[in-house]
Amino acid sequence: MVVVMTQEASQADIDAVCEKARNAGGEAFVSRGAVHTVVGLVGDTARFEAVQWTQLPGVAHVIKIGKAYKMVAADLHPEPSMVSVGQTQVGRATFTIIAGPCAVESVDQAMAATKAAKAAGATILRGDVYKPRTSPYSFQGLGEEGLEILQACRKETGLPIIVEVVDVSHVAHVAEVADCIRVGTRNAQNFELLKECGLTNKPVMLKRGLAMTIDEWLQAAEYVAQRGNSAIILCERGIRTFEPATRNTLDLAGMAAAQHESHLPVIVDPSHAVGRRHLVAPMALAAVAAGADGVMIDVHPDPERALCDGPQALLPSEMEDLGRRIAAVAAAVGRPMNLP
Amino acid sequence: MVVVMTQEASQADIDAVCEKARNAGGEAFVSRGAVHTVVGLVGDTARFEAVQWTQLPGVAHVIKIGKAYKMVAADLHPEPSMVSVGQTQVGRATFTIIAGPCAVESVDQAMAATKAAKAAGATILRGDVYKPRTSPYSFQGLGEEGLEILQACRKETGLPIIVEVVDVSHVAHVAEVADCIRVGTRNAQNFELLKECGLTNKPVMLKRGLAMTIDEWLQAAEYVAQRGNSAIILCERGIRTFEPATRNTLDLAGMAAAQHESHLPVIVDPSHAVGRRHLVAPMALAAVAAGADGVMIDVHPDPERALCDGPQALLPSEMEDLGRRIAAVAAAVGRPMNLP
Amino acid sequence: MVVVMTQEASQADIDAVCEKARNAGGEAFVSRGAVHTVVGLVGDTARFEAVQWTQLPGVAHVIKIGKAYKMVAADLHPEPSMVSVGQTQVGRATFTIIAGPCAVESVDQAMAATKAAKAAGATILRGDVYKPRTSPYSFQGLGEEGLEILQACRKETGLPIIVEVVDVSHVAHVAEVADCIRVGTRNAQNFELLKECGLTNKPVMLKRGLAMTIDEWLQAAEYVAQRGNSAIILCERGIRTFEPATRNTLDLAGMAAAQHESHLPVIVDPSHAVGRRHLVAPMALAAVAAGADGVMIDVHPDPERALCDGPQALLPSEMEDLGRRIAAVAAAVGRPMNLP
Amino acid sequence: MVVVMTQEASQADIDAVCEKARNAGGEAFVSRGAVHTVVGLVGDTARFEAVQWTQLPGVAHVIKIGKAYKMVAADLHPEPSMVSVGQTQVGRATFTIIAGPCAVESVDQAMAATKAAKAAGATILRGDVYKPRTSPYSFQGLGEEGLEILQACRKETGLPIIVEVVDVSHVAHVAEVADCIRVGTRNAQNFELLKECGLTNKPVMLKRGLAMTIDEWLQAAEYVAQRGNSAIILCERGIRTFEPATRNTLDLAGMAAAQHESHLPVIVDPSHAVGRRHLVAPMALAAVAAGADGVMIDVHPDPERALCDGPQALLPSEMEDLGRRIAAVAAAVGRPMNLP
Repeated sequence: MVVVMTQEASQADIDAVCEKARNAGGEAFVSRGAVHTVVGLVGDTARFEAVQWTQLPGVAHVIKIGKAYKMVAADLHPEPSMVSVGQTQVGRATFTIIAGPCAVESVDQAMAATKAAKAAGATILRGDVYKPRTSPYSFQGLGEEGLEILQACRKETGLPIIVEVVDVSHVAHVAEVADCIRVGTRNAQNFELLKECGLTNKPVMLKRGLAMTIDEWLQAAEYVAQRGNSAIILCERGIRTFEPATRNTLDLAGMAAAQHESHLPVIVDPSHAVGRRHLVAPMALAAVAAGADGVMIDVHPDPERALCDGPQALLPSEMEDLGRRIAAVAAAVGRPMNLP
Repeated sequence: MVVVMTQEASQADIDAVCEKARNAGGEAFVSRGAVHTVVGLVGDTARFEAVQWTQLPGVAHVIKIGKAYKMVAADLHPEPSMVSVGQTQVGRATFTIIAGPCAVESVDQAMAATKAAKAAGATILRGDVYKPRTSPYSFQGLGEEGLEILQACRKETGLPIIVEVVDVSHVAHVAEVADCIRVGTRNAQNFELLKECGLTNKPVMLKRGLAMTIDEWLQAAEYVAQRGNSAIILCERGIRTFEPATRNTLDLAGMAAAQHESHLPVIVDPSHAVGRRHLVAPMALAAVAAGADGVMIDVHPDPERALCDGPQALLPSEMEDLGRRIAAVAAAVGRPMNLP
Repeated sequence: MVVVMTQEASQADIDAVCEKARNAGGEAFVSRGAVHTVVGLVGDTARFEAVQWTQLPGVAHVIKIGKAYKMVAADLHPEPSMVSVGQTQVGRATFTIIAGPCAVESVDQAMAATKAAKAAGATILRGDVYKPRTSPYSFQGLGEEGLEILQACRKETGLPIIVEVVDVSHVAHVAEVADCIRVGTRNAQNFELLKECGLTNKPVMLKRGLAMTIDEWLQAAEYVAQRGNSAIILCERGIRTFEPATRNTLDLAGMAAAQHESHLPVIVDPSHAVGRRHLVAPMALAAVAAGADGVMIDVHPDPERALCDGPQALLPSEMEDLGRRIAAVAAAVGRPMNLP
Repeated sequence: MVVVMTQEASQADIDAVCEKARNAGGEAFVSRGAVHTVVGLVGDTARFEAVQWTQLPGVAHVIKIGKAYKMVAADLHPEPSMVSVGQTQVGRATFTIIAGPCAVESVDQAMAATKAAKAAGATILRGDVYKPRTSPYSFQGLGEEGLEILQACRKETGLPIIVEVVDVSHVAHVAEVADCIRVGTRNAQNFELLKECGLTNKPVMLKRGLAMTIDEWLQAAEYVAQRGNSAIILCERGIRTFEPATRNTLDLAGMAAAQHESHLPVIVDPSHAVGRRHLVAPMALAAVAAGADGVMIDVHPDPERALCDGPQALLPSEMEDLGRRIAAVAAAVGRPMNLP
């Protein structure tokens, strides 16, 4: 932590800062500049943060050095992590396609989407049974029945399944059934849910919140890691901006920045980011080229009848085509595809 | 719902839209323009929404008319609601000051803040015992012990208390003890939590999410109302923008727009919006002048030692001064202050 | 400037930073922390900025201390400035109402709006003759003819006039005719225009850009001041955010922050910020209570026929009513109204 | 244009809307819904827009159909345009690399960057001589001397040059010397500058403004096209959001949306979007995969001594490496590279 003094700060002001630092069990080093004097603090950051430095006379502002997350940081774990989901592994070593229906609606719909996903090269299935919907009048998911359908899809294809949890009370049960649990955008700072996920022995996918900085996203991941579960996959899915042409603004550079700051795998969900079918494939390919560790794509055998997010779901034939194009771009950037 | 056809749409395309509408149990009315033809749909919106109109040939785009919330809308309930919190009432008829510590830290701290709140004219006390913190390394609240301290504060002052809930499992208990429960910014779209609050018989304060539109905020409130609890108070507390000079950007016009769209009371939390002490009072006074139904202010007897959000907490003397200035502006705009 | 070293930085890395500082004509002070070492640099900031510190081995990041503006900063000019516009003065000492038509359309329209402005207590008239419109198909202003109409309005009322300039080539002429020239939102970083305004002897009102931070706004003002003209009035008029309920998001706390950082007067334009008539008065009153130095309001005798921004213009009767309410709130916060 | 009536609208209200439409020379078609009645208006949109529909009794809101730009729209010009820059052509048929120094600083610097650009496969050179800088204390460009250096670079390499203009007074001269003129982000809604560019016979590159929607960007391009110059290249360069990890947020989906709405070429500037060297290459490759028509990259022989935007400039060796990788991804997505 660095305390920057105002130009008018007196020697007494500077001394007072140093004394506060010593009172908090730390040390202070003074650097006098032509204009500003700067005091560097060394010690326990948590204790320093409780001090209201900016309320001391002569203090202009305080600069925090160091990050508010540790276990998920690249600093202390420079080797990227591979996270196991069922029999497969997600991380920088391969490129993973996750696909399936946004919401599980019926056996037929889920099975058709699942087969399309596998045919396209997906090695993990997605499918949700609890849907956090903005409007209370929208379809809210099949619940337990949906979980059974997903298990049948897994049996049919041999691929692991990833399922969203929306409440602490679901976590243990979903973690038992699914191969990976997911915390969605609107719950990305539901810290009780994150803590509960940290107590399971299944990998956790954490989507970025609509208004979350990269730094806050990694702090949210730290909540999971702190409880003992560091099998975490981050998922960039668009942030909220002023632009109405797409549902959200896909932040691919943010994805790359998260990879730089953290050892965790970072994948991209272009479907929910753009919300419009014709933009899904370009953004999926862009994600591969940008170095993402995977993509997650909505597929639906009949998007027009989809009960959730139909406008962004790819048809099975479009998904297969996209799978081929992803493989071509991955080859061009020297990235091996994840194989089942 | 209105379907706008492209310029190139054929008669067959238009007929197909009309047939889809009839298949969904509705009616269609065609308006031919010099450039665009427009088809107005009449019937069950939910069924219409399941149709992927934009995937039909000749459809340019679809315009939704009507709102995704009903029970909280001003349309169907033009008279503003007064919401009872303990013995007092919050709404357009008076201006309410809610004040107290951000987080309950100790008996002494809470009691000092509480007395300052009462002295400043507050008729409701705030104080949190579960703190959703961005960093897992920050103070997380006193829990049950804090609740007991708050009850003592209530006993001492006779003022009702409002407490944040952060998980479904807390709701019933907190609702029993507190006079009003609050759902915070980071849980504003934690729909399971909202539903649970809707099952209690205590009023619910719903803070706006960092990236929530007015429309989405009212949809979140609808989750509470749908379960039978329409005693809801909305709280504007700043949205996330690009501007770093303040912690968030206080959206007073959004507050006024929410009052216009809904019959619910809407108050303002300037403390969390700006995050800097010297901006709290100007924004509290602005809220009064703008027609807000109340303000909620952080007070701390010793902000420098605050375990949460110290930089924005007012000192007791500043709070008393602000209370006087609020009353003066309220008088100037013809708004009676809420009296205990 | 402060250079923060990574945890792994070697002594050689630290020495290299110090040498770079000396090569750039400065001095370096090293503070060793338990985790990070910090090097404080003292000297010519401009020369330091040309060095790419973050490309040196062992450098984590660089922190700039001090501001990128000087002449408009409160630091070096703690007494707030009063800016003369014609016979009146704008600044912290009084509260000023500026009003008139958004665009000058005809003698009758401008004169009617002008009289309404005066009747409401305005001491400065607004009215534009060059309109920067988003669409090339919208009304672009009356130009020279409009300037003559504005002069007639000034003659009739005795009030000074403020007029927007949109190109370097207009500046000298408009500055000759008008009492204050204005640079609009879309030109707020048109630096050639700012420089040209800095060469005139008329006060300059600088609106905040849609995506401008307070810091950038003050840097833009510095362009004007640097050329010798420090008679600058800042105008907050809403920033661009994700919220569609209002045209822009009025940032009153940003207004207050700009007053804190600068000695310049800061006024508020609620009309262009909200874009909806019924929200103009609440936001104007909020601006008074928040401590703004004035407001600027669109008035139109017949908003329905307005060629520009009709939906936000107040009727003359609404303007007069607002003038009375502004005076009441100003009295409540102890602010004398500006008198003609 | 579609007028949506409130639920309470009377027949007289509906009749009044129809009469207004007829008075404005148009026709009105009424669609009665179970809840809302909708009136479709056919006629001259400009005249309709002057009517303040929402101020009529019983009108809920008005929906504008059709776009505010025409000449640059894909609707009326479905075939994508190729724009000639010197001897080369930019558009969907090939992928173009534009590279060179951000600012021209000296003969040696510009020549070194230019040669690196050519070696990397660039077919157009960039290099600016007038720099619009946020701070008035930053380097502002070499002006005329810089233009001469750029001409020497062109002579040496045979590649056309693109140069930014920042004021109307520069346009004719720069257009004479350069092969393509550019309007930058901060001038993207400087309409006088756009109009002047529209009067030249050189192609115009229009960068997206920091807070510009796709729709507004195309309206700005329309200002150029309206004056007779439709040789326009759009350049996405990041928008302003809340995320501080990158300088701006690169909106690749916005780039794809602009390609969808317009027949103009759309390229991407990853350097200015991210502002950090290690993110430039990933975003350039993502742009290729997403289907952009080109990229524009900053190169500097000695970024540490760059007078402008050094932290984002690639070294010559990095640029050459990126050129190879771009070609590989272009091949993978079936896009031929632009050849000199």
